Amino acid sequence: MMEAVLWRCWRRLLSCQPRALTQPKSVLSGFTGQTMRVGTAHSNHTPPLLVSRLFQPSNLREMKESGLEGRSGEMTCRSQKLMLKGGLIYPSNPGCYYYLPAMVRSMEKLVRLIDQEMQGIGGQKLDMPSLCSAELWQRSERWDLMGKELFRLRDRHGAEYCLGPTHEEAVTELLASQGTLSYRQLPLLLYQVTRKFRDEPKPRFGLLRGREFYMKDMYSFDASEEAALITYQAVCQAYNRLFSRLGLHCVQVQADTGNIGGRLSHEFQLLADIGEDRLMVCGNCAFSANAETMKPGQTDCPQCHWGTLTESKGIEVGHTFYLGTKYSHIFDAMYNNSQNKPVVAEMGCFGLGVTRILAAAIEVLSSEDAICWPSLLAPYQVCVLPPKSGSKTAELAGVAEELCHSLGESLQSLKGEVVLDDRTQLTIGKRLKGAIRLGYPYVIVVGKSAADEQPQFEVLCQQSGETLFLSREGLMDLLGNVETV
Amino acid sequence: MMEAVLWRCWRRLLSCQPRALTQPKSVLSGFTGQTMRVGTAHSNHTPPLLVSRLFQPSNLREMKESGLEGRSGEMTCRSQKLMLKGGLIYPSNPGCYYYLPAMVRSMEKLVRLIDQEMQGIGGQKLDMPSLCSAELWQRSERWDLMGKELFRLRDRHGAEYCLGPTHEEAVTELLASQGTLSYRQLPLLLYQVTRKFRDEPKPRFGLLRGREFYMKDMYSFDASEEAALITYQAVCQAYNRLFSRLGLHCVQVQADTGNIGGRLSHEFQLLADIGEDRLMVCGNCAFSANAETMKPGQTDCPQCHWGTLTESKGIEVGHTFYLGTKYSHIFDAMYNNSQNKPVVAEMGCFGLGVTRILAAAIEVLSSEDAICWPSLLAPYQVCVLPPKSGSKTAELAGVAEELCHSLGESLQSLKGEVVLDDRTQLTIGKRLKGAIRLGYPYVIVVGKSAADEQPQFEVLCQQSGETLFLSREGLMDLLGNVETV
Repeated sequence: MMEAVLWRCWRRLLSCQPRALTQPKSVLSGFTGQTMRVGTAHSNHTPPLLVSRLFQPSNLREMKESGLEGRSGEMTCRSQKLMLKGGLIYPSNPGCYYYLPAMVRSMEKLVRLIDQEMQGIGGQKLDMPSLCSAELWQRSERWDLMGKELFRLRDRHGAEYCLGPTHEEAVTELLASQGTLSYRQLPLLLYQVTRKFRDEPKPRFGLLRGREFYMKDMYSFDASEEAALITYQAVCQAYNRLFSRLGLHCVQVQADTGNIGGRLSHEFQLLADIGEDRLMVCGNCAFSANAETMKPGQTDCPQCHWGTLTESKGIEVGHTFYLGTKYSHIFDAMYNNSQNKPVVAEMGCFGLGVTRILAAAIEVLSSEDAICWPSLLAPYQVCVLPPKSGSKTAELAGVAEELCHSLGESLQSLKGEVVLDDRTQLTIGKRLKGAIRLGYPYVIVVGKSAADEQPQFEVLCQQSGETLFLSREGLMDLLGNVETV
Repeated sequence: MMEAVLWRCWRRLLSCQPRALTQPKSVLSGFTGQTMRVGTAHSNHTPPLLVSRLFQPSNLREMKESGLEGRSGEMTCRSQKLMLKGGLIYPSNPGCYYYLPAMVRSMEKLVRLIDQEMQGIGGQKLDMPSLCSAELWQRSERWDLMGKELFRLRDRHGAEYCLGPTHEEAVTELLASQGTLSYRQLPLLLYQVTRKFRDEPKPRFGLLRGREFYMKDMYSFDASEEAALITYQAVCQAYNRLFSRLGLHCVQVQADTGNIGGRLSHEFQLLADIGEDRLMVCGNCAFSANAETMKPGQTDCPQCHWGTLTESKGIEVGHTFYLGTKYSHIFDAMYNNSQNKPVVAEMGCFGLGVTRILAAAIEVLSSEDAICWPSLLAPYQVCVLPPKSGSKTAELAGVAEELCHSLGESLQSLKGEVVLDDRTQLTIGKRLKGAIRLGYPYVIVVGKSAADEQPQFEVLCQQSGETLFLSREGLMDLLGNVETV
């Protein structure tokens, strides 16, 4: 029986034209295709991405938030609320979230940016195991030091592991195992972007304080303290470049070294009321520090001795440490110097909270009701709205569809970045409101002036807040400048 | 003291020109730069990637394999040996490996290919937590069924979790939580590429049977059995396209459904002696099956009733399941049909072993001594060898360097794909041998004929086994056809 059904289906499939060639004439006039994007990855003529088909529950539910109402008490900050309502994340266990497709697009863009900046300063990407042996962590004494923050488990043979919250031990052990490096091979910068685990006592604020999260962690090996500090600065500069490309105002503050250890440390903080870190910022010079590192009540600046320190709150999105030889000494990570003598390598470690940057950016850039993304990180750059079906201008549906197609084809940077809101049973106004809430950088309304002899399109530009009326050429000029990653 | 050193370094850094502008004239004549790739990610004029700086321990160790000798007893198959010796992986805990930078490049290419194929059939990428609650797995009864294969742990509050080896429960729970879908939104195909965990009793064969590994898992939701089977075939076709793009001969065999459940299942197998699966393949028709699904000793083909079945061994690289309503029934994953009545969704699940495909491809394509990659997956496409320093043709170093640069700049598909083997203290012969062992698809030797009035370059093409002597234009023509992903 089963077999019979299968064979029937198979035969039908084989007797079909290749799907890329049997595209429906208009996706809006009766879309019945099997898949959201018909055709193979090689087809040059892919139809637009349809909002009705995106698994972004706020779209699927057509503005109802039924599934989330019971959870509204748990929504403790703006980014969490916006990300839940916008169908970017969905809660699973405490401090653990499903990252839904729009969020994954955004995260992949952020990872590409991070890759560019880390590789730009010589970083090489690797990937270390999540399971870290107890023995490794006992050697650094962090097995005990980390206490309940470590997720611990035993395998079937009784061997003990933790789930790595960070990888100083693992990377230093790797280096030590490779035989002795030459000083000529330094600095060596190794990094990864992987899922990390930390058993937070009170996970909260959505992705800002979770138990499972993505982090970029880089580890540097240098020949001397001086060289290590040059590397340290190069990484800090790369971090500042990254935040500047994201349009985020990030403050680099003097920080405590915590249980990571080492002698010099900075945090990269986004100023926000929801932030859990208290910062002291000088009104006169560039000095700023985590309040933890200061004497309680101190308001005079220790650097310029002139300015007054005022308190702000910040969300930590990055952290850098000059470690010295703390780990390389324990694990014997050595290099041969120019006299061919083995010397313990100087290390640094450098973290960026990948999922945390996404949440923190939404936290600081958005309004109460509408997400605003760093424009490079918006899941899609452009949303095109055709008229309501049954309206006087319903025949413009084809224009909207063709516009989506030609934007993606003519402008290389917009390939895969344009969606068509085909839910034409809804008014333009309702869909426009939804599009604004989700934070598309550009929303194009195909309204009645698109039927004019000189067609005009209404374009809402989120960053500038402007609404423009543009010809097709004007639209191409505007969108031709959109940078994507 | 610390502060003083820091400030000195910082000042020096600030007084420097931006590093992109102070590139050394020749990286070969006294490379002393701080980083392997000088300049920012935006610089158009990045110097070549230098083999001496790549963290690929076979290069770092200059052909010595000291660190691995003690472990040679553990090298149980060709891919494991080649990947260890080639500096692609390094063992950590049993069944857990560091993926080193060349391996990560290869894996990222494979993931991009998988993304293309999965999105080509409408797949949407999400990312689900690794920590899966015991309660979720108890509902499907797999908490007990999986026995010791599950890694289990408790959090600080005593709540029990497993580390997800697969995510049928999680994705079905997600779907059910989103309110009822409309039949118009089906099929829905959700997939992820994430690290998975399985406590194998005897991890072995390197990445072929590990305890931590990367897997692509896709889950489909359909309105009817018939629709689910069409989706099933579409995914199988996408898998076949993927393996065909990789140049891997993959056999799709009838399989057992194991503890995943369901009524129809296929494995995608690469034929290899090291394979742990026994396959029965018909000599007459397209029938093939895992021997587990057959009567012991059966040699007559159950499909054509004519051919004889012969036994082969295979490495499973993909697995597809038609699940029916097994999970959707338990978790209440429903859709509304065209009469607006809620109906339990029909599901499928579809796995690809990402790290396993990489190892299996090396296993079946390589010789005993030299890695051969599916050409799309080679970490780097081209390696350029300048002459030995101090040799008569040493002055051609600049030509080699310029060639690297112009290949990367003129041929868009080779951007970031060209490395320069600057270890000119070694003979060309020795470096050539190393390059062949690592499996660069193209190795270009800049020898004395590159100094001729009509310069000629020696090119070793791994796939064809040919050695060509080409002019600069010939080289550009040849490499202009290289496909990258």
